[in-house]
Amino acid sequence: MAEKGLLLVLSGPSGVGKGTVKSAIVDNKVFPFEYSVSMTTRKPRPGEVDGQDYFFVSEAQFKAAIDQGQLLEYNQYVNHYYGTPLVPVKKMLAEGKDVLLEIDVNGARKVREKMPDGVFIFLTPPDLHTLHLRLENRGTEPEDVIMGRINQARTEILVMQDYDYAVVNDTVANAVDHIKAIVDAEHVSVKRVIDTYRKMVREN
Amino acid sequence: MAEKGLLLVLSGPSGVGKGTVKSAIVDNKVFPFEYSVSMTTRKPRPGEVDGQDYFFVSEAQFKAAIDQGQLLEYNQYVNHYYGTPLVPVKKMLAEGKDVLLEIDVNGARKVREKMPDGVFIFLTPPDLHTLHLRLENRGTEPEDVIMGRINQARTEILVMQDYDYAVVNDTVANAVDHIKAIVDAEHVSVKRVIDTYRKMVREN
Repeated sequence: MAEKGLLLVLSGPSGVGKGTVKSAIVDNKVFPFEYSVSMTTRKPRPGEVDGQDYFFVSEAQFKAAIDQGQLLEYNQYVNHYYGTPLVPVKKMLAEGKDVLLEIDVNGARKVREKMPDGVFIFLTPPDLHTLHLRLENRGTEPEDVIMGRINQARTEILVMQDYDYAVVNDTVANAVDHIKAIVDAEHVSVKRVIDTYRKMVREN
Repeated sequence: MAEKGLLLVLSGPSGVGKGTVKSAIVDNKVFPFEYSVSMTTRKPRPGEVDGQDYFFVSEAQFKAAIDQGQLLEYNQYVNHYYGTPLVPVKKMLAEGKDVLLEIDVNGARKVREKMPDGVFIFLTPPDLHTLHLRLENRGTEPEDVIMGRINQARTEILVMQDYDYAVVNDTVANAVDHIKAIVDAEHVSVKRVIDTYRKMVREN
């Protein structure tokens, strides 16, 4: 019985290793999912194919896409825009395919507004997870280092609270195992499967 | 970082194979969990140990436990009472241990009232899952058989909607794999881990 696909959003603080974890999922074929091809205003590099690596568009086209609500999220880096087109993502989900987006926390927040039923995974820095050990062993590190880390942790926890899952990236293999379990579990969650069952008996 | 333990409630229609799935989890040590020892008014059978196989009590003691709200759920079969004592379950969860209860759907409903944060898994009959195939191939089976199965399915779906997960028991190995994924995923769900993180930074 095919349920609608899952929108998996993998995010977390910069430097936490989102890209590495995503690559491990792709390389080891941990679970099947579709790519979302991003839209960008930067020029293609040699070998890059339009519609495959990116949708390459002009700045005017990109801004029109923003205005028409055609982007799930977008961002600007170094004078160029990058965004996730909404229609292809919705089409893949309707076909029952899972879609994986690996984006920064600002992008993830925008995606949550448009697609609240997505599965939002916050990749957690291992030093947030082990911060309690450092706190228990105060004296071995300068107090200002500890206080700086506590303030950073407060910010990370504020962001994390809007996610569904918090996966510690202590090792890539562990993080990937947890993400696989999350995908498996979400596929059998009642909120995702019950409509299919209801439809089956209602139509007879 | 130890979060509070999970209360796992495995239930489903009678005959779906709850006991077999639970035994497979136990025998293959799929994940560690604690047993909840039930309380009963029936007499011990040869070899059964009080406090290990069951807490053996009198009917007066059992009724007193009901009156004092000491049972998470209870039921009566063939003139004997069977129930799940609340205090040991709460103690194990507070110690961060997972507790697995395998009970019927009436018991599960009572547990949900008292412990709404439990993880409720509905073991789904494979013929509910494959009913849509039978419906698509009408004519190969008598119509009254099909209609009887549709009515039964309606009842099962009504019960399922109060659960968190619906796991099809097509093969025991598949069901166990899904339950393992559910346990792994729930352990990294933000709603279960964030209090530990918040406590860590608040106390410093």
